[in-house]
Amino acid sequence: MSIDINCDLGESYGPYHIGNDEAIIPFVTSVNIACGFHAGDPTTMRNTVNLALENKVAIGAHPGFNDVLGFGRREIKIAANEVYDMVIYQIGALEAFVKAEGGILQHVKPHGALYNMAAKDSQLADMIAKAVYKVNPEYILFGLANSELIKAGKHYGLKTANEVFADRTYQSDGSLTSRTQEQAIIHCPKQAAEQILQMVKEKKVISVQGQEVPIKADTVCIHGDSNNSLAIVKEISSTLLQANINIQNFIPLLTSSKTPTSSLENRGS
Amino acid sequence: MSIDINCDLGESYGPYHIGNDEAIIPFVTSVNIACGFHAGDPTTMRNTVNLALENKVAIGAHPGFNDVLGFGRREIKIAANEVYDMVIYQIGALEAFVKAEGGILQHVKPHGALYNMAAKDSQLADMIAKAVYKVNPEYILFGLANSELIKAGKHYGLKTANEVFADRTYQSDGSLTSRTQEQAIIHCPKQAAEQILQMVKEKKVISVQGQEVPIKADTVCIHGDSNNSLAIVKEISSTLLQANINIQNFIPLLTSSKTPTSSLENRGS
Amino acid sequence: MSIDINCDLGESYGPYHIGNDEAIIPFVTSVNIACGFHAGDPTTMRNTVNLALENKVAIGAHPGFNDVLGFGRREIKIAANEVYDMVIYQIGALEAFVKAEGGILQHVKPHGALYNMAAKDSQLADMIAKAVYKVNPEYILFGLANSELIKAGKHYGLKTANEVFADRTYQSDGSLTSRTQEQAIIHCPKQAAEQILQMVKEKKVISVQGQEVPIKADTVCIHGDSNNSLAIVKEISSTLLQANINIQNFIPLLTSSKTPTSSLENRGS
Amino acid sequence: MSIDINCDLGESYGPYHIGNDEAIIPFVTSVNIACGFHAGDPTTMRNTVNLALENKVAIGAHPGFNDVLGFGRREIKIAANEVYDMVIYQIGALEAFVKAEGGILQHVKPHGALYNMAAKDSQLADMIAKAVYKVNPEYILFGLANSELIKAGKHYGLKTANEVFADRTYQSDGSLTSRTQEQAIIHCPKQAAEQILQMVKEKKVISVQGQEVPIKADTVCIHGDSNNSLAIVKEISSTLLQANINIQNFIPLLTSSKTPTSSLENRGS
Repeated sequence: MSIDINCDLGESYGPYHIGNDEAIIPFVTSVNIACGFHAGDPTTMRNTVNLALENKVAIGAHPGFNDVLGFGRREIKIAANEVYDMVIYQIGALEAFVKAEGGILQHVKPHGALYNMAAKDSQLADMIAKAVYKVNPEYILFGLANSELIKAGKHYGLKTANEVFADRTYQSDGSLTSRTQEQAIIHCPKQAAEQILQMVKEKKVISVQGQEVPIKADTVCIHGDSNNSLAIVKEISSTLLQANINIQNFIPLLTSSKTPTSSLENRGS
Repeated sequence: MSIDINCDLGESYGPYHIGNDEAIIPFVTSVNIACGFHAGDPTTMRNTVNLALENKVAIGAHPGFNDVLGFGRREIKIAANEVYDMVIYQIGALEAFVKAEGGILQHVKPHGALYNMAAKDSQLADMIAKAVYKVNPEYILFGLANSELIKAGKHYGLKTANEVFADRTYQSDGSLTSRTQEQAIIHCPKQAAEQILQMVKEKKVISVQGQEVPIKADTVCIHGDSNNSLAIVKEISSTLLQANINIQNFIPLLTSSKTPTSSLENRGS
Repeated sequence: MSIDINCDLGESYGPYHIGNDEAIIPFVTSVNIACGFHAGDPTTMRNTVNLALENKVAIGAHPGFNDVLGFGRREIKIAANEVYDMVIYQIGALEAFVKAEGGILQHVKPHGALYNMAAKDSQLADMIAKAVYKVNPEYILFGLANSELIKAGKHYGLKTANEVFADRTYQSDGSLTSRTQEQAIIHCPKQAAEQILQMVKEKKVISVQGQEVPIKADTVCIHGDSNNSLAIVKEISSTLLQANINIQNFIPLLTSSKTPTSSLENRGS
Repeated sequence: MSIDINCDLGESYGPYHIGNDEAIIPFVTSVNIACGFHAGDPTTMRNTVNLALENKVAIGAHPGFNDVLGFGRREIKIAANEVYDMVIYQIGALEAFVKAEGGILQHVKPHGALYNMAAKDSQLADMIAKAVYKVNPEYILFGLANSELIKAGKHYGLKTANEVFADRTYQSDGSLTSRTQEQAIIHCPKQAAEQILQMVKEKKVISVQGQEVPIKADTVCIHGDSNNSLAIVKEISSTLLQANINIQNFIPLLTSSKTPTSSLENRGS
């Protein structure tokens, strides 16, 4: 049994600094690097790729809407083919830094509003999955567990990673509780870690309504900018390792990779 | 004896159309495709890559300053490392479309102010050449004949293509006559074609001062947006072919390429 | 009886030219000038203000979403207070050019997706109307006839102008037929002119379902970029003038204005 | 005897926070608010205008190059008329917020590279001064003491404010010592305050070469983002007040203003 822990990184922009990339990176196995559309300028991208390589974490492209002001969190009604094009563009831009710095790209995970829209909108999901497939069918597609995006990835024969959340509660239909509702957020690190442990071991989560909901957990999303997130990720790590669950990314699944498996244990963090 | 003819393409932007890409492409062997910073949005990039593939011309990345309003023609005093990063970013973005559509990238040619600055500024030239080298040492670097950019490319062991101009006059030091001066522009297609023929056959050009200047001509730049350019490129083609000079791109030089040689003659244009 | 004819202008952007501003302006009495967010850079704004002043048409600010690539036509889910702020910003920017060039501002008309969203979304409409009111309560708010935007304008005590369309058909509930449906567009200039004449004289329009729908028509929107629009606006002008309906803008309503009434008749166009 | 103390404010951008606006504002009498081109989005602009009004400091527009990534600090070779247009645009945008929130605009101070270029380039300076004059001849133009910008302002009959620096040393020709040289920066608050006191009382500054250089000091620039700046501004305040020099802005000079004089003493800060 094993699981990946991922985190968004490289969201600074020119003179503007955001996030605690150096603090959070020792506790994750994969990172999603912003590609310049919602955050992350070229120099930040290169620096973040190097930070990831130094820390031996797997690198993913994190494409988003072209909206720095809205941080990619505002829904934009965009033509399907434009989504296809903007995802290809952003993957390519990050790929070039990864190549230039001597690494490999592991995955693609859409950001913010694009991620949320692709979870429900099958046409959008299809365009994103197709974009990933066309650039490199080896790349792993990250998406919300059981979402349209995961389905679309499978349709193109991509390897997919079902993403789960430690600090969010779930509804009985398997969706996340909306942030506008009470009980949406799990603040207690222990409770968050228990939720993840149950997801990995029992392949289920208890909804806010008290029902058991089947869920597949391939990777856990950690928010690097939350005050609580460092406490949560430490608790998850120790809880999982104690339960003999390996924390590691998907690099071993990449046939092109000759990189040795990178697990949190190996790195000793 | 052989020479390449190149042209800037894909400079439209969202709702805004510019250039006569379809009209000019039959007369060139290489195209430089804008990468979204000074012109060219992701959808335009994909469409232009497909236009190039359909017309069997070689594709190059055409990175420029991040300045759509100034069309990349305004000099920006930028840190050297930022040039390195923005060139890598833009090459990667175009590469992804080329890969996704099943083609290969042949070359990189900086655009506008970046091209002009890199001709004289050795530090800037070094950063551009290094960026190309790090992304793919196979790529050919296009630069002004005898410029700092060509020198920098050779320093990194890159294949380089000395670019010459049909519609511009030269100074005795080998530089282009400034557009602010009279005699800068050659309007007569016959004169333009003769200048190119002399460059290819005799490896020299006659300066406005009447002196013979040695020049190496690997590729001719055609401006797709000028009214006169179609007449000029036609005259160049017929003049060169009549002199048994082959018009073809550098795809045969790429060791990774299995694409058959694409010459204007082969395409029958 | 009188009506205004308005048209979007100044939608070029840096090196990119769009629209036929000079051709259409003689046939309208008010113009909506893009403010730099969806189109129109500062230089284009100044030039267009001058074109309007030379042609003695009334000037309006035409704020839109910050989305040049989408031309302001893509819906963006934006916080209400951000709409308030972005409308104030854009009105101010245009106001400064109008003041610098010696004119006055008559009205504000939202552009594209913002216009359409404000027609139905009362909160968005409220923010736009409040922004106009706070910058200058004298300004006239243009909005779709009977829309939420018109209601919001009245709520703040603004003068409002109900906008109608010559080249679009109407539904029995008074809304425009969606462009995705057949019969949405009226191509025949005569039919378009008749629809406007009926709106002005009888204060009604016949829906595609054949019903009489009451409508107030203060200003007619002409699309400057359509091939057919010049034919349509000429037909409307002659039809209205023949029926003794005055074509003029709202400058006389502005208490601060000392500018003489500008009507199409007076201008002899 | 009296002097103004000014500071750049409102340089955050969407999700990105920068500066210590709340901490520094009690110690200044005028603020320069970014206008969206190099920093400052519409919402930040409105919030900053309100912060200024609450603190009873005078408000100035702080136009810069359209370059968020470079924070307006990179020189851009721009056509003179484009400078004119971009300054009008930005003044107008800020003016609208000031009007909407019930305040008045006191001054215009160019930002970063635009400020530095306008200090030496008379054509650029002319365009900026003309832009200010055309929008409102009442506005006060802030520029480097003895610069081309101050000259250009006087040419248009504008009131001008000679800006001096507390934390920078001067050359014998009256220019600032370049940041690339040692001795460029004054770190000691006491020394910085003494330099300002001498400028105000004796209308001179001692250059790094030891010479007395005549200088007119109307306003002191404080950098809000420097760690040391709070200590420096406090030292300047107490030093000046002890010497019976009034610290106040130029609002009393504005004929249109009915706002009571705002001096640091009156505000008790």
